[in-house]
Amino acid sequence: MNRTVDVCLSPDLIGSFDLNGKIVVIVDILRATSCMVSGIDNGVAGIIPVATLDECRDYQKKGFICAAERGGKQVEGFELDNSPFSYMAEDLKGKTICATTTNGTLAISKSLDADKIVIGAFLNLSALASYLQDQPNDIIIHCAGWKGKVNMEDSLFAGALIEKLEDSHSLNCDAPHMALKYYQSVKDNLQLTVENSSHAKRLSKIGIKKDIEFCLTIDKFEVVPILEGSVLVKMKN
Amino acid sequence: MNRTVDVCLSPDLIGSFDLNGKIVVIVDILRATSCMVSGIDNGVAGIIPVATLDECRDYQKKGFICAAERGGKQVEGFELDNSPFSYMAEDLKGKTICATTTNGTLAISKSLDADKIVIGAFLNLSALASYLQDQPNDIIIHCAGWKGKVNMEDSLFAGALIEKLEDSHSLNCDAPHMALKYYQSVKDNLQLTVENSSHAKRLSKIGIKKDIEFCLTIDKFEVVPILEGSVLVKMKN
Repeated sequence: MNRTVDVCLSPDLIGSFDLNGKIVVIVDILRATSCMVSGIDNGVAGIIPVATLDECRDYQKKGFICAAERGGKQVEGFELDNSPFSYMAEDLKGKTICATTTNGTLAISKSLDADKIVIGAFLNLSALASYLQDQPNDIIIHCAGWKGKVNMEDSLFAGALIEKLEDSHSLNCDAPHMALKYYQSVKDNLQLTVENSSHAKRLSKIGIKKDIEFCLTIDKFEVVPILEGSVLVKMKN
Repeated sequence: MNRTVDVCLSPDLIGSFDLNGKIVVIVDILRATSCMVSGIDNGVAGIIPVATLDECRDYQKKGFICAAERGGKQVEGFELDNSPFSYMAEDLKGKTICATTTNGTLAISKSLDADKIVIGAFLNLSALASYLQDQPNDIIIHCAGWKGKVNMEDSLFAGALIEKLEDSHSLNCDAPHMALKYYQSVKDNLQLTVENSSHAKRLSKIGIKKDIEFCLTIDKFEVVPILEGSVLVKMKN
């Protein structure tokens, strides 16, 4: 099989990619996709990603527990913030929750033409790579970035995933080469490097250094969340 | 002076940048900005960059020599192609020409809100860096990319320029860090690396390997083309 992997470094660039037949990996390391992986591993039955606060409110009215974040902070009136630790709470096991974040859920809503949408984070890196190696599809890694701009931690994750796929997939264009070389040049100092990223600095100001450290933990979990209809669920083995 | 440098990796991302008060460096290494630098060094009096073939035709009707490229190839009916060697022809000295290319001139037309627009290429790297160090403005390096996608050679040039500016400018966000690390990881094999870029492969198919080699030559020229009104001219010392 001659499969390829490509990287879209910002949701504002996704229009240049043909998603038809592809598996899209959504990446928003700080913190949306790290939360999703943590929640699904914790036993959350499903996560409904929505792009707007209004949609989130609609789900809330129907009785769903809702997580809403804008600009790194929890939005008033919703139950959960955007911390992976919040997604690992005991009382969420078996529940389906609704979530909206600044960048991550937008990346999902812009990827709906894909064949499959899965969730990537450092937390499930190897499990995700192993799943992708078993699929016949070409891959597009869709980095959520920050309000349209390219960010460090999502680009680095793209590089880390590409490193895992180098033997099975060829690089489709130039961006994967950049992401791979970038990751390889800093991977021995990943934590320190990302702590200096613009978004980590933004988050540090609101006191969530513990979240950042957790989100950079490689292979803590083995789940791969996948979008089924409008709900992210645990992929069946 | 606390000045910053940022990188926009594709014209499709420029909307996320505030260009007000900035110097924008336009980069389209293969081959628009390499042509512009070569032409201006050759004594071309001015280059009028236009986004569309129709605008180019209008200038042609007014008697201007016109360069038009789409998809790497010369467009029928126009005098010049998009090779730096064509821009170095004797009979262009003192002339003002009009040029439209797939990506480079689009990046210019999307940067018009900037304080100043200058042209960057490996060919004038040090001269450009030296000019930028003398200016009070923050800098945005605007990579033309390829039809909206991020490309290798423009991103690498961004990294090369940032390396020159590291002592005078701080990195404004994450993309400059990525471009810098990317450049530093491959700079000892720049030629070989770029020969494997998607666009170099595209160009090689139409037989212009000589152009690629030339466009990667560092510091061949000392001119910095700058946009004055609607015309790129040689910056006065």
